[in-house]
Amino acid sequence: MFKSILVPFDGSVGGEQALLKAAELAVLCKADVTVLTVFRHHSMLEASFSMVRASDPGNMDDIMRAHAKEVAEQGKSILREGGVENCRAFVKAGQPARTIVSFAKEHDNDLIVIGSRGMGSVEGYLLGSVSHKVTGLSTVPVLVV
Amino acid sequence: MFKSILVPFDGSVGGEQALLKAAELAVLCKADVTVLTVFRHHSMLEASFSMVRASDPGNMDDIMRAHAKEVAEQGKSILREGGVENCRAFVKAGQPARTIVSFAKEHDNDLIVIGSRGMGSVEGYLLGSVSHKVTGLSTVPVLVV
Repeated sequence: MFKSILVPFDGSVGGEQALLKAAELAVLCKADVTVLTVFRHHSMLEASFSMVRASDPGNMDDIMRAHAKEVAEQGKSILREGGVENCRAFVKAGQPARTIVSFAKEHDNDLIVIGSRGMGSVEGYLLGSVSHKVTGLSTVPVLVV
Repeated sequence: MFKSILVPFDGSVGGEQALLKAAELAVLCKADVTVLTVFRHHSMLEASFSMVRASDPGNMDDIMRAHAKEVAEQGKSILREGGVENCRAFVKAGQPARTIVSFAKEHDNDLIVIGSRGMGSVEGYLLGSVSHKVTGLSTVPVLVV
């Protein structure tokens, strides 16, 4: 029923649970799965607030991007172990929720599977986690694991 | 992968979309599906705020319950049309999100499929719809359609 699943992955335990659930669903539906790791731009504005200024603020983004790539590749390995044949890993810079929803729209994903903090309390709801923002913004179904 | 799916249904278009998605998933996973319609108690406190006081406030709950039963049965028909063999309909009084999450826990449902306003904006997030509260409170996966 689902053909193309997007799983935002930040390396967290909740994210791993989302990947495992997505893998199960993908095998069942014969869907492809895309792992997306989003990192935040280290902007000049943020740099100006720091006590210590980096000599080359450009490097910050490179370091963040390299780390995000590792995380995304780790996500792909989890999917492969889960039996998913058709999977890819992407890295994007930006505000997490908006970046995830735009990516799904651009790539015609028909399901987003995302981890929650899994606290089972109103806390997550009040704090406004990424998963809540994504369910609020997305026009395709979102499975919160 | 899912064995027992819970679909809260309030008779809305978003709720119907959730039922159709749940039916597809249930057929795929050979899962049973439970429709739950929650209505709010018309409490004595609320009655005391009204301009016109009902002669018998007890009746209010009966009327609400009867309407909720109709909605739940309509939900069951949608599931049947979607090919679901094993489905049931329940009616409960209470605060919607908490009632849904407690029901899922009591009945060992392993997935909640729920409709959103589907506005694709932050509005739904900010307004704190039932689906957002359910994803915040639930300890089992929630598919927001």
